[in-house]
Amino acid sequence: MAGSSFGTIFKLTTWGESHGSGIGVVVDGVPSGLPLCEEDIQVFLDRRKPGQSKYTTKRNETDSVQILSGVFEGKTTGTPISMAIFNQDQHSRDYREIAGYYRPGHADYTFDEKYGFRDYRGGGRSSGRETIGRVAAGAIASKLLKELGISVTAYTRSIGSVEMETFDPEEIRNNPFSFPDAAAAKKASVLLEDAMARCDSMGGIVECVASGMPSGVGDPVFEKLDANLAKALMSIGAVKGVEIGDGFSAARATGLTNNDAFCMDEGGKIKKLTNHAGGILGGISDGSDIIVRAAIKPTPSIASPQHTVNKQGEDITVQIKGRHDPIIVPRAVVVVECMTAIVLLDALLVGMSSRLENVKKIWKP
Amino acid sequence: MAGSSFGTIFKLTTWGESHGSGIGVVVDGVPSGLPLCEEDIQVFLDRRKPGQSKYTTKRNETDSVQILSGVFEGKTTGTPISMAIFNQDQHSRDYREIAGYYRPGHADYTFDEKYGFRDYRGGGRSSGRETIGRVAAGAIASKLLKELGISVTAYTRSIGSVEMETFDPEEIRNNPFSFPDAAAAKKASVLLEDAMARCDSMGGIVECVASGMPSGVGDPVFEKLDANLAKALMSIGAVKGVEIGDGFSAARATGLTNNDAFCMDEGGKIKKLTNHAGGILGGISDGSDIIVRAAIKPTPSIASPQHTVNKQGEDITVQIKGRHDPIIVPRAVVVVECMTAIVLLDALLVGMSSRLENVKKIWKP
Amino acid sequence: MAGSSFGTIFKLTTWGESHGSGIGVVVDGVPSGLPLCEEDIQVFLDRRKPGQSKYTTKRNETDSVQILSGVFEGKTTGTPISMAIFNQDQHSRDYREIAGYYRPGHADYTFDEKYGFRDYRGGGRSSGRETIGRVAAGAIASKLLKELGISVTAYTRSIGSVEMETFDPEEIRNNPFSFPDAAAAKKASVLLEDAMARCDSMGGIVECVASGMPSGVGDPVFEKLDANLAKALMSIGAVKGVEIGDGFSAARATGLTNNDAFCMDEGGKIKKLTNHAGGILGGISDGSDIIVRAAIKPTPSIASPQHTVNKQGEDITVQIKGRHDPIIVPRAVVVVECMTAIVLLDALLVGMSSRLENVKKIWKP
Amino acid sequence: MAGSSFGTIFKLTTWGESHGSGIGVVVDGVPSGLPLCEEDIQVFLDRRKPGQSKYTTKRNETDSVQILSGVFEGKTTGTPISMAIFNQDQHSRDYREIAGYYRPGHADYTFDEKYGFRDYRGGGRSSGRETIGRVAAGAIASKLLKELGISVTAYTRSIGSVEMETFDPEEIRNNPFSFPDAAAAKKASVLLEDAMARCDSMGGIVECVASGMPSGVGDPVFEKLDANLAKALMSIGAVKGVEIGDGFSAARATGLTNNDAFCMDEGGKIKKLTNHAGGILGGISDGSDIIVRAAIKPTPSIASPQHTVNKQGEDITVQIKGRHDPIIVPRAVVVVECMTAIVLLDALLVGMSSRLENVKKIWKP
Repeated sequence: MAGSSFGTIFKLTTWGESHGSGIGVVVDGVPSGLPLCEEDIQVFLDRRKPGQSKYTTKRNETDSVQILSGVFEGKTTGTPISMAIFNQDQHSRDYREIAGYYRPGHADYTFDEKYGFRDYRGGGRSSGRETIGRVAAGAIASKLLKELGISVTAYTRSIGSVEMETFDPEEIRNNPFSFPDAAAAKKASVLLEDAMARCDSMGGIVECVASGMPSGVGDPVFEKLDANLAKALMSIGAVKGVEIGDGFSAARATGLTNNDAFCMDEGGKIKKLTNHAGGILGGISDGSDIIVRAAIKPTPSIASPQHTVNKQGEDITVQIKGRHDPIIVPRAVVVVECMTAIVLLDALLVGMSSRLENVKKIWKP
Repeated sequence: MAGSSFGTIFKLTTWGESHGSGIGVVVDGVPSGLPLCEEDIQVFLDRRKPGQSKYTTKRNETDSVQILSGVFEGKTTGTPISMAIFNQDQHSRDYREIAGYYRPGHADYTFDEKYGFRDYRGGGRSSGRETIGRVAAGAIASKLLKELGISVTAYTRSIGSVEMETFDPEEIRNNPFSFPDAAAAKKASVLLEDAMARCDSMGGIVECVASGMPSGVGDPVFEKLDANLAKALMSIGAVKGVEIGDGFSAARATGLTNNDAFCMDEGGKIKKLTNHAGGILGGISDGSDIIVRAAIKPTPSIASPQHTVNKQGEDITVQIKGRHDPIIVPRAVVVVECMTAIVLLDALLVGMSSRLENVKKIWKP
Repeated sequence: MAGSSFGTIFKLTTWGESHGSGIGVVVDGVPSGLPLCEEDIQVFLDRRKPGQSKYTTKRNETDSVQILSGVFEGKTTGTPISMAIFNQDQHSRDYREIAGYYRPGHADYTFDEKYGFRDYRGGGRSSGRETIGRVAAGAIASKLLKELGISVTAYTRSIGSVEMETFDPEEIRNNPFSFPDAAAAKKASVLLEDAMARCDSMGGIVECVASGMPSGVGDPVFEKLDANLAKALMSIGAVKGVEIGDGFSAARATGLTNNDAFCMDEGGKIKKLTNHAGGILGGISDGSDIIVRAAIKPTPSIASPQHTVNKQGEDITVQIKGRHDPIIVPRAVVVVECMTAIVLLDALLVGMSSRLENVKKIWKP
Repeated sequence: MAGSSFGTIFKLTTWGESHGSGIGVVVDGVPSGLPLCEEDIQVFLDRRKPGQSKYTTKRNETDSVQILSGVFEGKTTGTPISMAIFNQDQHSRDYREIAGYYRPGHADYTFDEKYGFRDYRGGGRSSGRETIGRVAAGAIASKLLKELGISVTAYTRSIGSVEMETFDPEEIRNNPFSFPDAAAAKKASVLLEDAMARCDSMGGIVECVASGMPSGVGDPVFEKLDANLAKALMSIGAVKGVEIGDGFSAARATGLTNNDAFCMDEGGKIKKLTNHAGGILGGISDGSDIIVRAAIKPTPSIASPQHTVNKQGEDITVQIKGRHDPIIVPRAVVVVECMTAIVLLDALLVGMSSRLENVKKIWKP
């Protein structure tokens, strides 16, 4: 089916495989008049680019974006923005071997079951490179949100057993893990190097906070803001769990400890004293920060010997070669941030017509 | 926006408020030829019906379903199946008071912010009664899945700090909590009665397992099977977190411990030795059981005094009256099961065309 | 598939069969704050109700609408509006005979081919009664358009060879054909009575004009305003052709005669000197009247002997019994008007976010 | 809004402007296993390429397609197929003038009204070059339909007042107008040269016939096969009217002359004696040829003096320069054919799940 599109009004459609010509995205429904250039996109892509630390794949890609349509005289025109990032450093040879067997923890087997065969080079469509299109689209969403006074920030909350204990926003881009806590980053590097030495890999948790989101955005029932965030994050390759606000902890809380009391702030506006809800009540934003978390599994590609089967139906032992991240988390941070931005922006655009008085503001001013 | 529909081919649209005429659902895209009667739906509705134990609201509703269209001579015709459940025991009086203030943990405030006003009676559209439509649709999905050899079963995994320790499927319907573990149910009742005595409420975790699901179902990228499950479950009123397979635990595992090895079973078919992935790899079913979990927050309606604000912008203290479940979990079990069934069936129907050879089986046999 | 929904933001989902419990529609995405009561809907339904002249079926239905949700204290709440019209005067007996053969010009055969069997009573889902749901939804759309200063009016342009020659809006509801020309109505009645005497039926053309539509509504490419109008009208049972503006005549015109010159009006606003385009250029409204036309085939149910086959695969001759309109056109007028209103309103709601400056008007005023 | 996508399962998303980097399309939902190479696409693109006769624009484009994803080892993989056609011969200078005024019959004014400004070079997104993406996608659809035994053929039915009188399929590609009638082509060339001499342009009608379509495809109500065909054709730039089967003539027929009698053919299968319905009854294919027609307006770009206004709000007279087709019809033929193929294929894919027995054929064989 057509599963490569996301969003209702702000809608992206991604394409591309790890070792094909390139990766791209078409972003439709972008309001006209937003100043946009390739550099706006590139800064986001650079955050997920490989080779930025010893903890990421050695694949050498500049991931340079080209805007092919939808921008004229430096501004979005309202028509689809097509962006392409052509692949450069494909070592497809490394993958010829895996054509013949099913890597544990990967989608090789399920692609074969679904489609009858697969582009096995570098994971084909199921490669992490697929997220490039999401990040390019998310860069546009983030820029537009900023125009509305909304900022979205993701960071690493934990790697393996190492959890962040302090929150310093300045620190996030200072360490190779995107931890907002320098001490945690240090501990994580020890842990990770140990895992790398054992030809093993690690996972972690990414958290994302959106500030400045107006209240009243999102829908009741199926298009709840949290429901769409959950889909958006769970659709990222290695994500196995999603939480809003207190998430799974809420299941162990009581009504008295979990409810957020409303109160009046000094400016005479309604606010919440706490934010266990993560900024969403009944699927609709309540004006507090939106808080989401995604659990990311350890990289399945590891050089340790593993049991599996080949296409001839024989049990075999394999050791995955190639250039793989020992941990996906740091590069997933910007992907989580971008998917969050995309969901929030789409909800804002869709939500413009919720009141008749707003419809009149636009069409009968 | 139009947020009350869900699904691509098997598509439900729900309507109704807690204290309006009733609740209903239109289910479109049901294949023709499925034997169906009201009793098939009623048995599912009876599982979420209030008043079945002292741990649920005293509201007295039979929740009797009427099939208004789409079934002829005992079989589905392929046209939309409209079902209505008319409300009976509305005590709207109980709610007149809450019209004037914002209940903590509820959607009162966010509805007002979004729409300018709200149907305050019993929570209106944000009431738990909205799930009746989902259950009615899920009953159809479950019946159809059974025809394909697929069974879906949800149960309570934890209530507060009480976790299930054994799994006895026979036990699930034997205790008021849908625990598959009689001892856990006993412990939970002690805990819950204590909470009730303190005018407090509790939450918990619901788990759902689907067996018999063929491999190769679901899509890469945005329409991943797990992404749609996450959206489906997170769209249920009180859900704050969703996991697939090992979920958040996977974030603390390593590649070696988290990867599921493939092997050949006795019948010469490929299977997995473990199921940390919860039956989904790269968004596509792998033939193992599908395993999902939803974290459910404690009921926000509690009789203890709480701080909040009224519509005049004054800080006040309130005690919520009315008939409320001290815990939502037991009645949410069937809702989680139904939403899971709906997602799986829709993915199966959408996935029929993934291979040209399958298209030929239907259109050029 | 799920083919019973229409629209992106203003979205209707219809259900029901000719001789089932009733007919209904769920309208989702209606902005909150619109005053609405059952009478608003009923006046539209009364225009398509049978039995209003000797030229329509004798089936006796009051077609009384009930609003089941989405309206509170006399205003729309923004949540789905469910409406039901229960059937009363079903003579299902009349149809038992047609269960066994395929009526020419009807969907009996194609339903059997698609679904394997069909609800044959009165045409089941393919009955003209299916349009009741469209009209109920269209009544809401029309009321909302009126709040924006937009009026939509449909009327009969021709019946058989009789074409309207004058246009008097007052006359439209004065004659049984909805002709804006009393003389044409008179001629049509002669023609039609002659056809009825020969057990034959007639068709015609319905035209619809929307005034007050702002410019800049609709989208380029696939969601062109005219493309959605074409789909909307062609989806009405007996429609076989759709035109915008000059339509098929434009194919015989030249650039010089078909182009509409722009000029400045007295108020200093841009207008067009002519309106061959029917108010749409490049899929987007140009501020002139929107003009569409639908060609409606003659009623296929006729009492004359016709050749066909039965389910046993035998060639037979049949004479259709039952209560049938000798012409569908007059009752289709309000359906065309309603579908037009639905498309225009949806385009207006969807189009609110086309410019960043409009997004800011709502979310950062 | 996101208006650049079309289709439910077989879904295309187009991008690009006349004078930007290029034009492209992402086709998602293509079943895996279809042999496909660039040559398959190129033969279709060559049919709409400019410069093939003196009756088309002199713009010199090879319109060479590149497949960027979704094909591996010569077969479709089931993942999105991205195709790009980079622009070569842009004379953007020719267009600087039109930046300042509104060309009659063009979308200049409506784009400005919708988006606040526009990419004026060559019509930007509203250029006829946008159809390149449709043709590339249609080439895939046509190839897949052929595998199912279905062929789709479009041709010119009339140009101005010249109508085809004979039908010789071999002749279609023999003359510059795609007329299936050599004599008509000759007459048209006289007429057209006369128009060109007067700096005028012409329109015409394109007809498309699909043979081999199985019965039972399409949906009742809003997703009728004819409704989707109407939308698909009306979404092509210059189309102002659409007909199915007898179309507008049906409005002047009677039930007796318009109904198609069913009968048994020699092979014991049901067929229709006539095909006034154009192969569709109740929105569902009946096994006869599908017949659609599109009315195409005369090219709005003409060199004759025309009245219009400029952006300063002054009435002016203009003469359109640049390289324009004096008639769009011949190059629109392949676009109509492609959009028809796309709709039919999507309906076939969507319709696979209409019966439970078919669902079982795929998932429980």
